[in-house]
Amino acid sequence: MKKAVVLLSGGIDSSTSLFWARSKGWKCLCLAFDYGQRHIRELRSAAAVARKAGCQLKIVKLNLPWKGSSLFGGSGRLPRPSSLKEIRSRIPSTYVPARNTIFLSIALSCAETIGANAVVIGANAVDFSGYPDCRPSYFNAFRLVARLGTKCGIKGRPAAIIAPLLKMNKAQIVRLAERLGVPVDLTWSCYAGGKKPCGKCDACLLREKGFKES
Amino acid sequence: MKKAVVLLSGGIDSSTSLFWARSKGWKCLCLAFDYGQRHIRELRSAAAVARKAGCQLKIVKLNLPWKGSSLFGGSGRLPRPSSLKEIRSRIPSTYVPARNTIFLSIALSCAETIGANAVVIGANAVDFSGYPDCRPSYFNAFRLVARLGTKCGIKGRPAAIIAPLLKMNKAQIVRLAERLGVPVDLTWSCYAGGKKPCGKCDACLLREKGFKES
Repeated sequence: MKKAVVLLSGGIDSSTSLFWARSKGWKCLCLAFDYGQRHIRELRSAAAVARKAGCQLKIVKLNLPWKGSSLFGGSGRLPRPSSLKEIRSRIPSTYVPARNTIFLSIALSCAETIGANAVVIGANAVDFSGYPDCRPSYFNAFRLVARLGTKCGIKGRPAAIIAPLLKMNKAQIVRLAERLGVPVDLTWSCYAGGKKPCGKCDACLLREKGFKES
Repeated sequence: MKKAVVLLSGGIDSSTSLFWARSKGWKCLCLAFDYGQRHIRELRSAAAVARKAGCQLKIVKLNLPWKGSSLFGGSGRLPRPSSLKEIRSRIPSTYVPARNTIFLSIALSCAETIGANAVVIGANAVDFSGYPDCRPSYFNAFRLVARLGTKCGIKGRPAAIIAPLLKMNKAQIVRLAERLGVPVDLTWSCYAGGKKPCGKCDACLLREKGFKES
């Protein structure tokens, strides 16, 4: 049986990735990060989704003693894009420097420690092409790091870095989520942290688009 | 003036890297990690060395909720190699999965956030060739990640990943440390955390060799 470490933020993408890995029969350990993000609402969602999938969730606490993105801490206004086109035309201000690299490196460490063959991440390059660390070429570079920088890699068995949604758009992800039985109502995409999603941030707009089109 | 983020463990290698960067006139922010290592004696050394260099030190707290190396936590016996040859012939049991990747990714994030042009790491490939993430090819792979996975990288200005000691042996490092005025007495290499270095672990043996040969 394959073992995987799944990066789970509690959003629809990472939740779908988890259910995708489960549908392959893989035993999954979920990792979520408490890294000073604007709100921890998403950690509650991650816990609920992991429970639904029958998987263990571990929360990595990471205290980065500097600020630098509107997703860190409570400071700074969230962007309110006027259109989806606007989202795609820029590197979003919600970009967090090297975030996926940090998450992947910690997941890689975990995978090697517990003997997992794969790291699964819910990144997708279609709607969020603005994030440099969501592009296929970036993941290929990280695969090289995994191969050259770990004991498993040296022995020819690096953990595979798998981004099953990488080339899907939001509508395709929503359809896949439905097919896999993802508890979509438990997921949380919104960058703000209120009781209800704000409906205005990048993540809300993309989520809405996904549901409309699917 | 160039700005650098320097990974500072408090050992002689990272301390020498810091003084090397200072000797270039770079403004340095030092990062140390409180990641559940066996002892935090080295953090005290890092603070003392940073102070001596006139640089700020920030401590990143990282709680990885799993164990997996004798450098994590207090469990497990430290290796007592019978010779330096033995050290070089294996991947040491002090290997921590993907540790440099974790450290570099966090330093990369910090560098992009504060606008630093470089990340400096004290790795060396000669005496510690057993660590996969101390090899030149590994660092080249990580440079690719920095170029492809960050906003600065996309704009053609990724933080440079600099390992000034990479091709030096311990004796050369000790000589460089002396030339640069590194406060060697403040540094701490030993993997154990008593009042005095144990004199028996990999790090102690290599340090002793360096001083003898220099």
